[in-house]
Amino acid sequence: MATQFWTNMVKVMDIGERRLIERMMLHLTQMPGMPIPFWDDASALSLGDGRALVVNTDMLVWKTDIPRGMTPYQAARKAVVMSVSDLGAKGVQPIAFMPSIGLPSDYPVASVEEMARGFEAGAREYGAYVVGGDTNEACDVVISGVALGVAQESKIMKRASGAGPGDLLATTGAFGVTSAGFKHLIEGLEVPGGIRKPILDSIYLPRARVKEGVALAETGAVTGCMDSSDGLAVSLYDLARSTGTGFKVTELPVAPSATRFAKRHGLDAADLVLYGGEEYELVFTFKPEDEGKIREALDGAGCSPLVIGEVTGEKDMVLAVDGAVKPIRAEGWDHFTG
Amino acid sequence: MATQFWTNMVKVMDIGERRLIERMMLHLTQMPGMPIPFWDDASALSLGDGRALVVNTDMLVWKTDIPRGMTPYQAARKAVVMSVSDLGAKGVQPIAFMPSIGLPSDYPVASVEEMARGFEAGAREYGAYVVGGDTNEACDVVISGVALGVAQESKIMKRASGAGPGDLLATTGAFGVTSAGFKHLIEGLEVPGGIRKPILDSIYLPRARVKEGVALAETGAVTGCMDSSDGLAVSLYDLARSTGTGFKVTELPVAPSATRFAKRHGLDAADLVLYGGEEYELVFTFKPEDEGKIREALDGAGCSPLVIGEVTGEKDMVLAVDGAVKPIRAEGWDHFTG
Repeated sequence: MATQFWTNMVKVMDIGERRLIERMMLHLTQMPGMPIPFWDDASALSLGDGRALVVNTDMLVWKTDIPRGMTPYQAARKAVVMSVSDLGAKGVQPIAFMPSIGLPSDYPVASVEEMARGFEAGAREYGAYVVGGDTNEACDVVISGVALGVAQESKIMKRASGAGPGDLLATTGAFGVTSAGFKHLIEGLEVPGGIRKPILDSIYLPRARVKEGVALAETGAVTGCMDSSDGLAVSLYDLARSTGTGFKVTELPVAPSATRFAKRHGLDAADLVLYGGEEYELVFTFKPEDEGKIREALDGAGCSPLVIGEVTGEKDMVLAVDGAVKPIRAEGWDHFTG
Repeated sequence: MATQFWTNMVKVMDIGERRLIERMMLHLTQMPGMPIPFWDDASALSLGDGRALVVNTDMLVWKTDIPRGMTPYQAARKAVVMSVSDLGAKGVQPIAFMPSIGLPSDYPVASVEEMARGFEAGAREYGAYVVGGDTNEACDVVISGVALGVAQESKIMKRASGAGPGDLLATTGAFGVTSAGFKHLIEGLEVPGGIRKPILDSIYLPRARVKEGVALAETGAVTGCMDSSDGLAVSLYDLARSTGTGFKVTELPVAPSATRFAKRHGLDAADLVLYGGEEYELVFTFKPEDEGKIREALDGAGCSPLVIGEVTGEKDMVLAVDGAVKPIRAEGWDHFTG
């Protein structure tokens, strides 16, 4: 490409992923009757009989997305987790996964076979099959995964499914472990032996909340849901933007190993919890009177939800703990601005 | 990645794309009841009511796949063409397209907007909508496209749909133009003015045979079909491998501009026709008694099919023209071995 022409132009890193997508969307015609609008975790097509096909595509690039020490098996499995997590967040059971893979021509065949085992393991773990894919030559290992599922349109949990002030805000689990793991891998902070396994597992073997999402959708009581792969704070902003509300977080969902890691290194556990990324918990809202129904459904999926706050009428995002109210910043992971 | 460990290992370029996929498939569990088997142009999921979701994913990498002079608009549109061509080859009308895009962080936003216009133009041209996608940082521009459609399972044209000896072999159009274009762009061979436009258009603005594929599927008379994006010879080998037959080509489908280009440069037009790639004609078979039905269906789609030979019981692939019988080699494009 003619790089010399790029010099005076606005670059994708100048505006970041969200504004880039906004700019692209200006040129797209929206499909009539989309069961899930743009700016949600997944896309959907009506099947005309009350059902919708729900599909997500997500790209994993070795140089920028793969942490040190991750194996091809783990990277491939993670590509599945990333994609099925978005389906799970819509309450949709994945049926099929298709990887499109870019590989340098001198990449070892044995590593590609490891990847195949990773795709298979990830797909089967979440009840799906690998039904096809594509391979191509590329300058780096690139895995673009497609996850597919079919669901009743009326049961799909959109980011905006009717949340209003007073609704409770909850997550399927605690946060901060992955942030601790990245601080270890990227900044070299030591991980004490006792919490080494959960912290490294959260990076190398992340888990998607698929059965939890499907169980939540069955209740019909969720007023908004998304996954938290861009970090808790960014996810709250995204959810609030879709619903036109704000959130007051009154109970930070801090994982015990994140607390321990934060103490050891003099960090604020709240930062690990709010401003991380690559965590695959679901963040969702529901009416207070439905809490029993929600807990029962998640209990059936082996999960105890954490109520962390509530939906507010004001369009701001605050952390109200220990008697102090502080703003939550819209900070987290952006693929282009870093 | 630990490149130093790669030295003694078998690399993907040593075995090529086909054997790489074979090796990967050893590790995959096949989904029960797949409406389209592995090794076809697209994958499919049964929707349980006689219909199937048909999906294809295809990756385009700037450095290896994008010819000199192609614009971001054209590359994006081509990504759509590549994916919908595979659906068309199965007789399936595309409904939706989703691009997953890798971009260097210093890539111009204006070029990404051009791409968005290319996705939109390509999708709308073939009756589909862009319903979502993903952006990511990468070392090169990478576009992984997903095309989705829904079809009656019984109407899907598989590579193997019952072809047997005596069936006629046909294409939706002539070949060789794209090969001429690549010889111009890569080897610098001059293109005479009169054929410049069709030759450059075939590279920069390729067309998929979607409505032709849908029309063919409606006849119910096609015994095997695929697109020819890997070149005519390779496509014949792929089709023959799926059906367990051979082919005798008795009439080479040479485009007039390919003939003219070949003459000008002292090339064999047959080589341009057989051993090219990035052409999106359909290659298909049918019983001789159905020829009228096939011609009528394609005529309605504005296309005149070319009968180029027949299916044989022997598992070989020959060119029988001008009284001589020559083997057709399994040569064409491989992403890894070049």
